Amino acid sequence: MSKKDNIVIIGAGLCGSLLALRLAQRGYKVAMYESRPDLRVTDISAGRSINLALSDRGFKALRLCGVEEKAREICIPMYGRLMHDREGNTFASNYSGREGEYINSISRGDLNGILLTEAEKHENVTIHFNTECTSVDIENTVAHFKDYNTKEEFSVDGDVIFGTDGAGSALRKSYYLERKFLFSYSQNFLAHGYKELEIPADKLGNHQISKDHLHIWPRGEYMLIALPNLDGSFTVTLFLSYDDGEYNFNNLTTEEKITEFFEKEFSDALDLIPSIKDEFLNNPTGALGTVKCSPWHYQNKTLLMGDAAHAIVPFYGQGMNASFEDVTVFDTILDTHEGDWEATFKAYEKARKEDTDAIADLAIDNFYEMRDHVANPLFKQKRKLEMDLEKTFPTEYFSKYSMVTFNEEIPYAEAMKKGRAQDKALLNMVAHHDLDTITDLKEALKKVQEETNEILEEDKIAGFR
Amino acid sequence: MSKKDNIVIIGAGLCGSLLALRLAQRGYKVAMYESRPDLRVTDISAGRSINLALSDRGFKALRLCGVEEKAREICIPMYGRLMHDREGNTFASNYSGREGEYINSISRGDLNGILLTEAEKHENVTIHFNTECTSVDIENTVAHFKDYNTKEEFSVDGDVIFGTDGAGSALRKSYYLERKFLFSYSQNFLAHGYKELEIPADKLGNHQISKDHLHIWPRGEYMLIALPNLDGSFTVTLFLSYDDGEYNFNNLTTEEKITEFFEKEFSDALDLIPSIKDEFLNNPTGALGTVKCSPWHYQNKTLLMGDAAHAIVPFYGQGMNASFEDVTVFDTILDTHEGDWEATFKAYEKARKEDTDAIADLAIDNFYEMRDHVANPLFKQKRKLEMDLEKTFPTEYFSKYSMVTFNEEIPYAEAMKKGRAQDKALLNMVAHHDLDTITDLKEALKKVQEETNEILEEDKIAGFR
Repeated sequence: MSKKDNIVIIGAGLCGSLLALRLAQRGYKVAMYESRPDLRVTDISAGRSINLALSDRGFKALRLCGVEEKAREICIPMYGRLMHDREGNTFASNYSGREGEYINSISRGDLNGILLTEAEKHENVTIHFNTECTSVDIENTVAHFKDYNTKEEFSVDGDVIFGTDGAGSALRKSYYLERKFLFSYSQNFLAHGYKELEIPADKLGNHQISKDHLHIWPRGEYMLIALPNLDGSFTVTLFLSYDDGEYNFNNLTTEEKITEFFEKEFSDALDLIPSIKDEFLNNPTGALGTVKCSPWHYQNKTLLMGDAAHAIVPFYGQGMNASFEDVTVFDTILDTHEGDWEATFKAYEKARKEDTDAIADLAIDNFYEMRDHVANPLFKQKRKLEMDLEKTFPTEYFSKYSMVTFNEEIPYAEAMKKGRAQDKALLNMVAHHDLDTITDLKEALKKVQEETNEILEEDKIAGFR
Repeated sequence: MSKKDNIVIIGAGLCGSLLALRLAQRGYKVAMYESRPDLRVTDISAGRSINLALSDRGFKALRLCGVEEKAREICIPMYGRLMHDREGNTFASNYSGREGEYINSISRGDLNGILLTEAEKHENVTIHFNTECTSVDIENTVAHFKDYNTKEEFSVDGDVIFGTDGAGSALRKSYYLERKFLFSYSQNFLAHGYKELEIPADKLGNHQISKDHLHIWPRGEYMLIALPNLDGSFTVTLFLSYDDGEYNFNNLTTEEKITEFFEKEFSDALDLIPSIKDEFLNNPTGALGTVKCSPWHYQNKTLLMGDAAHAIVPFYGQGMNASFEDVTVFDTILDTHEGDWEATFKAYEKARKEDTDAIADLAIDNFYEMRDHVANPLFKQKRKLEMDLEKTFPTEYFSKYSMVTFNEEIPYAEAMKKGRAQDKALLNMVAHHDLDTITDLKEALKKVQEETNEILEEDKIAGFR
């Protein structure tokens, strides 16, 4: 098999664009097809998160492809969460006790544009917009498309086809429907949906609330968050049940009820969202789903990557980072197996699957943490202790959040296992006042480590997988 | 809504037949459609487990419908596992330390036949065989069928449609494809498949090995089990990976290799299976899958029950019992909500879903336990202690297995939560020799209970859901 293999990539979103760039750098001929128009010339943000959190796993992949600095130029650092209570009081909680560890708000469209432009600089890359993949003949590696402009249907035959076509992947659907192999597959929706709103910039073009934080209005049943944009605005996202509770998407159908809901639950935010009624009634409500599946590949012919293989809910800010990390891991596997696609695909899933499963589960955990626990005294005490430990022992203590977000050399699965045990140890020690008599932080660190290791050991003996 | 509602049931397997019987007893008019021929007149066992384990949850449902005694007449009690090692040595492990707690080997076909016959005794029940459901129009409660004999297609309009059509449910597929609501759905396959073989009766028609046990040949990568039949034979099931390991379904394709595999791993069983080569090469290989989904119902129109809603792997012997228990729970819900199908369906899923999720997870756990752990010294020591505790404190101590299998008043989810904590406590106490110095069994019981409660409390503080 030659390096001149013709690669077809379905989907020119964040993962597809970065993959195209990397494969082009490795010398492959890449043809990429995207159902949407070119987002560099058309505004197509409606209904999708227009900003995202970029952190160290994402940067590592961007660095591999030589585009880290271009991305950093459009980043807004967020150093912690800023919680807003019902009375409008706020309190901050840093993401890390270490210097220089923060997450970044970045425009999905702008970043995608950078990646498309970089990919297109390679003469062995072609990008086709407004072409929707309708199905894939996986046996013959032929992808079928419909051109939205000409309305014509056409087919493309590649040596290998990558599906980076997102949570609604056409390639994945073909796996499911063609029934050529036992396909393990799950799609799980939360009872909550989401809706995007906007806090505009003030008259001078400045941010109206701190741009150094990810803002959270945690209310148990509901949650509002806001991430800053470069133009001084914030993208606000409301998470709300479709059906349950006093207020939900199905019953918030009148301007009166919407205003009542926001006045009661988010009055300080309401003051900042002038078009609340219009936006609430006109912006789409999105679903929050997790997709897992296996196998990701079919023989030596096709492979799912990014959200197409593992869509996750947004609550850990890791969706884009996980998809970019796919490219990092795939590149490493190619170093070993290049020339044998089936071996490459198998080794890639073996190396990657438990980590994407882990971040999917962690993201669900964080939904409950952000919604219910961040304002809980036990949780606040634990976070304070963790900040002190990270600050005092920057090379020895890493919270679960730090392992997931700032330590790209720790795989997600390991971060989950160790992080959950550590959280359990900390919460129980705080609840039982085990640390109240300890004045020396070094001693506290030792005790936390011992308890964490004991928990891991007990789980191991119990045979928990 | 009147009691004279016309009910359509798709699938006349174990769950559908029992549901038809119960609904008929409650006065509904029931039309049941089954794709297979009538198993009372045609032998259609090929490729499906021909015997199953029936235990207390199943009996409770059969009792509700007045057919418990008829079922008991065709049961063979199995009091424990009998493990066979590579050298042909055996050791027994009882299912319970209490008197009168055992599971029962029963013929799927014979039990299904009893239920069909009982249902048919009601004049308000009609059963149609050889009619396959091709799809369901859930909005209009119309089920589409194909008659295998006449080759004709026809449609049936019911007031309500129940899908008890098993793991490959046509109703569930219609939920997935019609996309009228957010449908959470998963199908997960183990890397192992299964194949059925037979140990025939001896010349006198007697069982060649103990009929009082469920036989297990645990080998880590592989596992063989055997359940007795009334005619003196055993149905043997081999669990083996499709692809992995030295021996697997994909490479066991010659008589030589099959013999080599059995001689090496299961030599005492090989001596008892005269037609091993024929059976291995000709009997189908089945997949082992878990199906979960939600919601089970659509408005006041359709409902999934049994394997159609929650197919599980066979390793806890609870598949049939869980499906029968569905009928028990549904009957209770009907007592409260009869006349309002939507409220009935909602309340039923709310009451039942976490329990069927739990038994699905427990069945996966047991796959690893049976395959890997039953021969492990730590595990054997734990089981011995549990038998002593159950024997000495029959009303105070219940192992996880006992809670799941013999305590139909404890819901599966509660049995899982408490049972897992108890197993963890026991295994850690055994591993750490905490019980070595304790000579008084009463003291051991107290210690186990304390440790179990502590584990549950720690999980609760950590917010584990």
